[in-house]
Amino acid sequence: MTTIKSIKNQLFKIPLAEILSDAKHGDHDHFELITSTITLEDGSVGTGYTYTGGKGGYAIKAMLEHDLSPVLIGKDATEIDEIYDFMEWHIHYVGRGGISSFAMSAIDIALWDLKGKRLKQPLWKMAGGENNSCKAYCGGIDLQFSTEKLLNNIRGYLASGYNAVKIKIGRENMQEDIDRIRAVRELIGPDVTFMIDANYSLTVDQAIELSNAVTDCDITWFEEPTIPDDYQGYAKIADATAIPLAMGENLHTIHEFGYAFEQSKLSFAQPDASNCGGVTGWLRAAQLANKHGIPACSHGMQELHVSLVSSQPNSGWLEVHSFPIDEYTHRPLVVENHRAIASDEPGVGVSFNWEKIKQYEV
Amino acid sequence: MTTIKSIKNQLFKIPLAEILSDAKHGDHDHFELITSTITLEDGSVGTGYTYTGGKGGYAIKAMLEHDLSPVLIGKDATEIDEIYDFMEWHIHYVGRGGISSFAMSAIDIALWDLKGKRLKQPLWKMAGGENNSCKAYCGGIDLQFSTEKLLNNIRGYLASGYNAVKIKIGRENMQEDIDRIRAVRELIGPDVTFMIDANYSLTVDQAIELSNAVTDCDITWFEEPTIPDDYQGYAKIADATAIPLAMGENLHTIHEFGYAFEQSKLSFAQPDASNCGGVTGWLRAAQLANKHGIPACSHGMQELHVSLVSSQPNSGWLEVHSFPIDEYTHRPLVVENHRAIASDEPGVGVSFNWEKIKQYEV
Ligand SMILES: [Mg+2]
Ligand SMILES: [Mg+2]
Repeated sequence: MTTIKSIKNQLFKIPLAEILSDAKHGDHDHFELITSTITLEDGSVGTGYTYTGGKGGYAIKAMLEHDLSPVLIGKDATEIDEIYDFMEWHIHYVGRGGISSFAMSAIDIALWDLKGKRLKQPLWKMAGGENNSCKAYCGGIDLQFSTEKLLNNIRGYLASGYNAVKIKIGRENMQEDIDRIRAVRELIGPDVTFMIDANYSLTVDQAIELSNAVTDCDITWFEEPTIPDDYQGYAKIADATAIPLAMGENLHTIHEFGYAFEQSKLSFAQPDASNCGGVTGWLRAAQLANKHGIPACSHGMQELHVSLVSSQPNSGWLEVHSFPIDEYTHRPLVVENHRAIASDEPGVGVSFNWEKIKQYEV
Repeated sequence: MTTIKSIKNQLFKIPLAEILSDAKHGDHDHFELITSTITLEDGSVGTGYTYTGGKGGYAIKAMLEHDLSPVLIGKDATEIDEIYDFMEWHIHYVGRGGISSFAMSAIDIALWDLKGKRLKQPLWKMAGGENNSCKAYCGGIDLQFSTEKLLNNIRGYLASGYNAVKIKIGRENMQEDIDRIRAVRELIGPDVTFMIDANYSLTVDQAIELSNAVTDCDITWFEEPTIPDDYQGYAKIADATAIPLAMGENLHTIHEFGYAFEQSKLSFAQPDASNCGGVTGWLRAAQLANKHGIPACSHGMQELHVSLVSSQPNSGWLEVHSFPIDEYTHRPLVVENHRAIASDEPGVGVSFNWEKIKQYEV
């Protein structure tokens, strides 16, 4: 009865209200949402998904359609770990990260959605149950905003009930980054939590220079100062500066998280369930982070990560990302007293407003 | 005039003469060939390609079609390094290996094909020019062959003019692997070079046990004893055994080759230009191998790698793979006196027999 009967994969290109830019991915005028809806023999339905900044969506959908869905039909949807391992080996030769991690994530999240509906449990309980709320911060994609617009954007975050913010850095002229960091800290005062994110645009030396220029700005973390592949470069930055380091959105396998935790002297881990293997992959990364005494944060898709980040003993910060996937679901992110609240709905707590998104299907 | 005018991407599913099996990728009844044909404003045409064991082809084609080709139109095809770096950053968020490495490889090889045609130079000269021939061995995908069939297959290799062979290991029962290794060494006598390949199916301890059981069989290398992600596990095997280690077919970025060369105590490197960034990616890996005193070998697509392996000062062994891509080109691999001979044709020396493959296009 819990046998997988069919899988429907869809790709949506959803426009952003304005162009958003960072140091390494350039301009974004839309994001891609890729959904996998699994129907079981007993008629129950679960939906998983992944997203991108605008590239790779067709490849993810192609892999779901041609390489994963056909071989998953007939499998028992309750065997989530077995299916996870099966997928990993099935596409290993073209995998070990990249597109395959995104595709596997969509399937895995759909299986957890089915599990929650079957057990009548919300994700935060199934995933660990430590709490149903977590700290949250707003992450701007604001590198090319003027300083005035940047500050207005921050004012908007504070007015919406948040007391933690992150800005992009990595402008051509480092002094501009430093000036913008100072301007934001001045605006928000000493009590608001403040992070910076370079999207791996700096060399190790540049990252050290910038860190040391803003040590008085009380930066909670410096995210992706340099390329994620340079695990030991992160440790060099950590050793030479006082600002804690964060990364994870570009780590796709548990092995990559292992290298980072062992070599990079990170203070925060930011796995993204949409690209590191879904709920199963995120939990494995978060649990490994916990073994290293590192808080588990998130990247993107706040409507799902709120449940995961809340559920863990090493709960870190939920990123409220500038791609508003949650606005296309029936429960946009709920924030109370600066904390994000997980859904109590059985399943992963994310049900898409199909009527609203169907116009964007490609 | 050297501006990219159009790119045509095609996917072919080419049947194998019989089912071929290894320890981790299961049964293969066909392979996928994905070609990218680039036409410049001046009318010149170059073709690159990649291949898979049967999965991922649609995703590779989708990425070529939707994420790479549109943004490459209008670029100067002579700027190969710039285009390589551009592609890497353009699809970075869904990249760092996996499908993106395969897609980039096809484009890069097409650019080198155009370069050779423009300069009237064959690939072996452009890539380094050390030599136009190299050592070659036949790699069987023969894990599920009976011992009798395995030995007959090896006899066929020797009869075809080769004096070096590799077999798959990783059967459920390790004693069967050991018996098969002994049977092959007995068949070929002491003068034929002999390698084994586990397709990362063993634990570190199992790999050590197996190595130590066949130390008297004069194995030239033990390929992928364990998962490629476990860089330090390779070093443990190297320290505990006498058999030299090889890997590379599952390493997709120069960073991954760096970790392997620094941590894994490899004796042979096996980059595959179809999945580590084309000619550009293969050369970067081979040159890094040379810095570590490691010979550069290859995996798959012998019709192209013959030129690359021949061209390098640290020339290793060319694998003559069981996916016979070369049989679908106008110059199947040429072997003389046990050595493979590179093409002198301008370009990468691989021109497909489109008439022969068109029936397999999907
Ligand atoms: Mg970030
Ligand atoms: Mg191999």
